[in-house]
Amino acid sequence: MDKMLEGINSPEDLKKIPAENLPQLADEIRSLIVDVVSKNGGHLASNLGVVELTIALHYVFNSPRDKILWDVGHQCYTHKILTGRRRLFSGLRQQGGLLGFPDRQESEHDVYNTGHASTALSAALGLAVARDKRGEGFQVIAVVGDGSLTGGVAWEALNQIGHLREKIIIVLNYNEMSISPNVGALSKYLRYLVSGQHYLRIKDHAKSFLKSIPAVGWPMIKAGRAVEDAVKKAFFPGLVFEELGIRYIGPVQGHSLPSLIEVFEDARDYDGPVLIHCVTQKGRGYAPAQNNPERFHGASPFNRATGEPVTNSTVPTYSEVFGQAVVELAKRHPGIIAITAAMPEGTGLNIFAREFPDRFYDVGIAEQHAVNFAAGLAASGFRPVVAIYSTFLQRAYDQVYHDVCLMDLPVIFALDRAGIVSDDGPTHQGLNDLVYLRHMPHLVVMAPKDERELRQMLKSALGYGHPVAIRYPKGKAVGVGVDEKIQDIPLGRSELLKEGKGLLLPIGSMVYPALRAAEKLEKEGISLAVVNARFAKPLDEEMILRFAEDGNTIITVEEGVVTAGFGSAVRELLDREKRFGVRFKSIGLPLEIYPLGTSDQIKKLYGLDADGLAGQIRAFYEE
Amino acid sequence: MDKMLEGINSPEDLKKIPAENLPQLADEIRSLIVDVVSKNGGHLASNLGVVELTIALHYVFNSPRDKILWDVGHQCYTHKILTGRRRLFSGLRQQGGLLGFPDRQESEHDVYNTGHASTALSAALGLAVARDKRGEGFQVIAVVGDGSLTGGVAWEALNQIGHLREKIIIVLNYNEMSISPNVGALSKYLRYLVSGQHYLRIKDHAKSFLKSIPAVGWPMIKAGRAVEDAVKKAFFPGLVFEELGIRYIGPVQGHSLPSLIEVFEDARDYDGPVLIHCVTQKGRGYAPAQNNPERFHGASPFNRATGEPVTNSTVPTYSEVFGQAVVELAKRHPGIIAITAAMPEGTGLNIFAREFPDRFYDVGIAEQHAVNFAAGLAASGFRPVVAIYSTFLQRAYDQVYHDVCLMDLPVIFALDRAGIVSDDGPTHQGLNDLVYLRHMPHLVVMAPKDERELRQMLKSALGYGHPVAIRYPKGKAVGVGVDEKIQDIPLGRSELLKEGKGLLLPIGSMVYPALRAAEKLEKEGISLAVVNARFAKPLDEEMILRFAEDGNTIITVEEGVVTAGFGSAVRELLDREKRFGVRFKSIGLPLEIYPLGTSDQIKKLYGLDADGLAGQIRAFYEE
Repeated sequence: MDKMLEGINSPEDLKKIPAENLPQLADEIRSLIVDVVSKNGGHLASNLGVVELTIALHYVFNSPRDKILWDVGHQCYTHKILTGRRRLFSGLRQQGGLLGFPDRQESEHDVYNTGHASTALSAALGLAVARDKRGEGFQVIAVVGDGSLTGGVAWEALNQIGHLREKIIIVLNYNEMSISPNVGALSKYLRYLVSGQHYLRIKDHAKSFLKSIPAVGWPMIKAGRAVEDAVKKAFFPGLVFEELGIRYIGPVQGHSLPSLIEVFEDARDYDGPVLIHCVTQKGRGYAPAQNNPERFHGASPFNRATGEPVTNSTVPTYSEVFGQAVVELAKRHPGIIAITAAMPEGTGLNIFAREFPDRFYDVGIAEQHAVNFAAGLAASGFRPVVAIYSTFLQRAYDQVYHDVCLMDLPVIFALDRAGIVSDDGPTHQGLNDLVYLRHMPHLVVMAPKDERELRQMLKSALGYGHPVAIRYPKGKAVGVGVDEKIQDIPLGRSELLKEGKGLLLPIGSMVYPALRAAEKLEKEGISLAVVNARFAKPLDEEMILRFAEDGNTIITVEEGVVTAGFGSAVRELLDREKRFGVRFKSIGLPLEIYPLGTSDQIKKLYGLDADGLAGQIRAFYEE
Repeated sequence: MDKMLEGINSPEDLKKIPAENLPQLADEIRSLIVDVVSKNGGHLASNLGVVELTIALHYVFNSPRDKILWDVGHQCYTHKILTGRRRLFSGLRQQGGLLGFPDRQESEHDVYNTGHASTALSAALGLAVARDKRGEGFQVIAVVGDGSLTGGVAWEALNQIGHLREKIIIVLNYNEMSISPNVGALSKYLRYLVSGQHYLRIKDHAKSFLKSIPAVGWPMIKAGRAVEDAVKKAFFPGLVFEELGIRYIGPVQGHSLPSLIEVFEDARDYDGPVLIHCVTQKGRGYAPAQNNPERFHGASPFNRATGEPVTNSTVPTYSEVFGQAVVELAKRHPGIIAITAAMPEGTGLNIFAREFPDRFYDVGIAEQHAVNFAAGLAASGFRPVVAIYSTFLQRAYDQVYHDVCLMDLPVIFALDRAGIVSDDGPTHQGLNDLVYLRHMPHLVVMAPKDERELRQMLKSALGYGHPVAIRYPKGKAVGVGVDEKIQDIPLGRSELLKEGKGLLLPIGSMVYPALRAAEKLEKEGISLAVVNARFAKPLDEEMILRFAEDGNTIITVEEGVVTAGFGSAVRELLDREKRFGVRFKSIGLPLEIYPLGTSDQIKKLYGLDADGLAGQIRAFYEE
């Protein structure tokens, strides 16, 4: 077993394999990927879909001289395996191991780091322009999913690529999915193209145009509207791209190695930007993933034989609690409309979508539009709830500011995956939202300590009459259960959990660890009240100032960067009130958080678990 | 004179005017606009281009029941004049007067505030969905320039509009300009459409398709590639939009009132999203603006007869100093590439473009792509300089973080218009950049006190080996002149300008006013050293800590929001070093800064001129 793969330590080794043996290699790679991901978790479906595509790229092109960019990057496992990282692959996504995304520090074959969607086309153009300025002759290839093309920055890039006409090969990895099935007009258009004629060699294109006319035939042209379609498909395949200056070729069967190799060779020789429409299948070759690609997008460890998840906790995830809560609230509030940017499963809004299909909108990978669309709804009196991961809402920073907060429109933002995110590495950490949100005019910024409070915050947000952001972590909630009748939280009201002399002021996910730390420290003679802040904006000024006496201690704790974060907000209050005598400390994360690992491992590393917090606080008192 | 316009105080009044008299009304409106803008400054060229278009919209539709959204919003003057604000129009862009952009607070005819580009399509979809959920029958019209269509969020919106197929009327105001001439493949495509057949009524469309075939003729089809074009144009006008599910009609002569009225009436009755391609001319009807629309985009007051600017200071603008400096540096650094997002004039990079056309890229209104394109160039060893206004770089927050800073790529960001911006109102203020940049890993953040230092910072940035952001204000520089040989500034080194006991620590544009305030206060017995901070990140810790003694005072001053800004950075340092005895104050702007006015007026209002600073500091000492 695995004999062929064992001989491959670089793309050069791959090229020595006869083309007819490549399907066997693909099988071996699939097997390795399923093996490792079943143990470590990871992006299974997307990687199984591009095994042949990646083999063919490395067979035809010469990395690292030729540059291959992976949009999003969650489909680079075969690339890593073929470029000298086969032995390290068992450490995928583990502390000290391989990143699940391209990483310039890891290999010269990884030319551009990705993680967020739709960035590779712009970067590819940068590489191509740089190449042509230097008169170098290498190839630049960007592998982009059809889901990513929905993202605005991809459009911005296509617009300049078609204009400059530098030579770039765009491999459109068409599988009709982002994480969920793709939506939107472009998606429909691509599906339509797939139903048309198949790949023609570029040099045959002009000729075939003329030849195909008699086949369509003059009499048929008279048949009306339906024929418009036939004419378009026969004469102008991929015309949307062609009109924008990008040669379209396809569709190509994306699991046929001979077809892929032929089309890549053809594209290699074409002079200008070209888009190759490759039809692939997410989860290809592993039945459970093939049948349920959404669940196997970012999979937790699973049983290889059955595909069933290994863990079976009864504690719900925050996403599930959120999805369920929006359903309950929507029953009484007809104005609620739920919006996601390609993450119905990930955000828990799939629960809402089942219950209220007419009040649910998946806009695709389009965070900016999601926010402005919500602004339009809110300006019309509706109450949109926009659920986007913390790291991806960064994409809509300007829209949150310019389109929602400046107009004080009551949009509710639900920031899932806020804080440290396991296994995905630096591009997916949700550590900036408290910074990028807390200076927005009119915006209320909250973080719940547990699932019960998440529900309370969602309900309360409906009553504040302002835009509201609620941040909560990835994964399992605390497990405290929820109340059927949801209590309201008055705007800006914190919660005193433990009395004490100094003030320990954690927010969100840090509340329980901080409480445990304070209880531990109490026994050592360090007396700290613990107040669940709840709000990063507006602060519960009265509560905080109660502790703001000369010589007393106030310590904030947040799961986010300390620079400019929640702690700084508290400090700004103290300064504004001239409470200069307070001994103040803000605990959180440094700006550069790069280590791979689970959320627990990273928290431990940075002293954000109960023991770590106790240690940091003790040191502050002792210094 | 102006008789007809004087009778119009609402769109209802407009509808009473016989259609044949509307051209005279257009003349009167043009005259009023040129009058007021020549005195107050404003967006002249864009407004003169849409006079007929706006008249026709209000003639055919019924605002405020029908909703008209203005993308960017800098073309809404005729709309304001026709919707009850004619008398107030003389106060355009003045303190206490009319905003130059749509404003929901100002009128029920302004349904959605704009200022940044490319947002109206998303918002229009929100309005249309809200309408249809309530079963209301009004029309939603979005007026969008061809430049705005380049912006990614517009694409994201089109993708969902074509998919949902709610009824929306998109008026494409096609003038081939953003502020500068448009670039990109889409622009080329739109130009190509204009050269095709003209507007057909929608109901005639299918019929005309069949009828037009004989005209093109079978024999012609044999003539090859050139005919492909003829076929496309005749059979499939606007196919890029049509393929995305949006009915294309046009091109329409955008200054012909009968044509516009006809096409709007036609579109009103069409059931689904429709895009009307209106060809207009920027600056129409006022020769100086017609001949130089770029200069009359956002014009300063000018002589109505000649079009010449009223002021003629010899002090250069920061933009000019920047553009010149990049040219000088580029002569010695072949790696420098300059990038702008549709602002070659505004950023001063037009100077660079003339000198180094091959090293200059205008990507269009596409800030996200501008940053990622720069990242690709930097990853290839080039040294891109990306010049974008502070408020518009917000659009690329995620790209600055994810694509540049996480990879530590040495891109230089030049943030023009940072700080308070005269006359344009809330959407154009550049007050957030110190917040949204200072928590980016690896990024260096600087602000020069004058034009000499701007040059020094630019040159020094090339040596830091990290991403660097330099922010500077709109308008005239200080007037200190520049050195031919540019000095280097060591990374993180501040500049002591005046000795004293406490520390006054201004950054950027606040340095000279702070110095004057300190000199004034010195006479009153308040002794403050003045240190030009230069860097918001990394701070000159040694210099700051020198003053961080118990009971001593440190006061920061910045032209930006105080929340999470530069002042908070200094405070974080003091806390980290446990200098709790320092009396600290941070001076800057509050989160909500909405008053219209000149930069000087607003600074005075918020106490940021020398007198205001002295007053704030005096109060701090006296309290």
